[in-house]
Amino acid sequence: MASQGESIESLTRLKETFRKLPGIGPRNAERLAFHILREPRDFAAALAQALIDVKDKVLHCKVCFNLTETDPCSICSNANRDQGEVWVVEQPKDLLVLEATGLIRGTYHVLMGHISPLEGVEPEDLTVSALVDRVKSGTVREVVLALNPTVDGDGTALHLQDVLSQLGVQVTRPARGLAVGSQLEYATTGMLEAAIRGKANM
Amino acid sequence: MASQGESIESLTRLKETFRKLPGIGPRNAERLAFHILREPRDFAAALAQALIDVKDKVLHCKVCFNLTETDPCSICSNANRDQGEVWVVEQPKDLLVLEATGLIRGTYHVLMGHISPLEGVEPEDLTVSALVDRVKSGTVREVVLALNPTVDGDGTALHLQDVLSQLGVQVTRPARGLAVGSQLEYATTGMLEAAIRGKANM
Repeated sequence: MASQGESIESLTRLKETFRKLPGIGPRNAERLAFHILREPRDFAAALAQALIDVKDKVLHCKVCFNLTETDPCSICSNANRDQGEVWVVEQPKDLLVLEATGLIRGTYHVLMGHISPLEGVEPEDLTVSALVDRVKSGTVREVVLALNPTVDGDGTALHLQDVLSQLGVQVTRPARGLAVGSQLEYATTGMLEAAIRGKANM
Repeated sequence: MASQGESIESLTRLKETFRKLPGIGPRNAERLAFHILREPRDFAAALAQALIDVKDKVLHCKVCFNLTETDPCSICSNANRDQGEVWVVEQPKDLLVLEATGLIRGTYHVLMGHISPLEGVEPEDLTVSALVDRVKSGTVREVVLALNPTVDGDGTALHLQDVLSQLGVQVTRPARGLAVGSQLEYATTGMLEAAIRGKANM
């Protein structure tokens, strides 16, 4: 096995590098490496180029910290978006989910995480001060705290509410309650509590 | 979503390229792309280089058709290996499996597939004629047909036995029977038949 392994060093190296990706086990890494071997060189080159381009071209928007190739990003620089409404999310992925609904007319602010005392993440590790500066600049009318409805997300939202409410900006959050399409009998206590407390006229 | 998609073209392209790999669904491709974004540039560069190197450096040994970076491969050019014994396998992966046992003192011949009339694979599509030439050259004493014990593998083995036996070389195949570590009550008909027909003194 030793001599064999040495003679195809590049194949072994490709397998081992694939192995470092999340969710790729040893069998999967081998399968991927053999797949690359069988595919035309153009495919390997395209994947290689895409990897490099992502690292070289993608940056964080200096206004909202969303991932972008132009700075400011296309949302922050879009005159048709309501620059007075800022949806605060934890991660760029969350922004994509909200944006895909087509319902947001405002802009975003990506925190790049949530406050987590257990994981040692403090407000200083996030983009909180940049959000405060945006609000202080006077263009922001309403901040919607669209953090994950989890313990850490709620904790982060409380901290932001504390900080932002002192600046005289309106602070809101998305509605909570029963998940549309779910069944009452399977609802969690948290979902039921939110649904009952938040009951509204039809 | 459209404006967002355009602004991070390289990220979208990386996701779409990951999607083309076997076993990578849309969620997985997104996860991998975001992972690359978070990792240091060195990691993306290493993966990119490994992809290119595999395509540029790995070739088939002109003797046995195994994957190699040197031609002939380290097994075919190893004076300590028995060049008179040739283990015929379907794929380079099968060679790795046999080689990993450390029990093979001979060399290999990779067919690059099996004969399959249904899939339109004829002997001419495989490395059969190169195997015949090796045997004709006079250095080969025994050919072990280590093909998969499947319908196509067995059919290919029969064809090779036909062709090779005319050349006066000894043609053998690995033993078949009960899978070591398995239980008799779960053995398939094929396993049992091979075990019964092949019974031997202890």
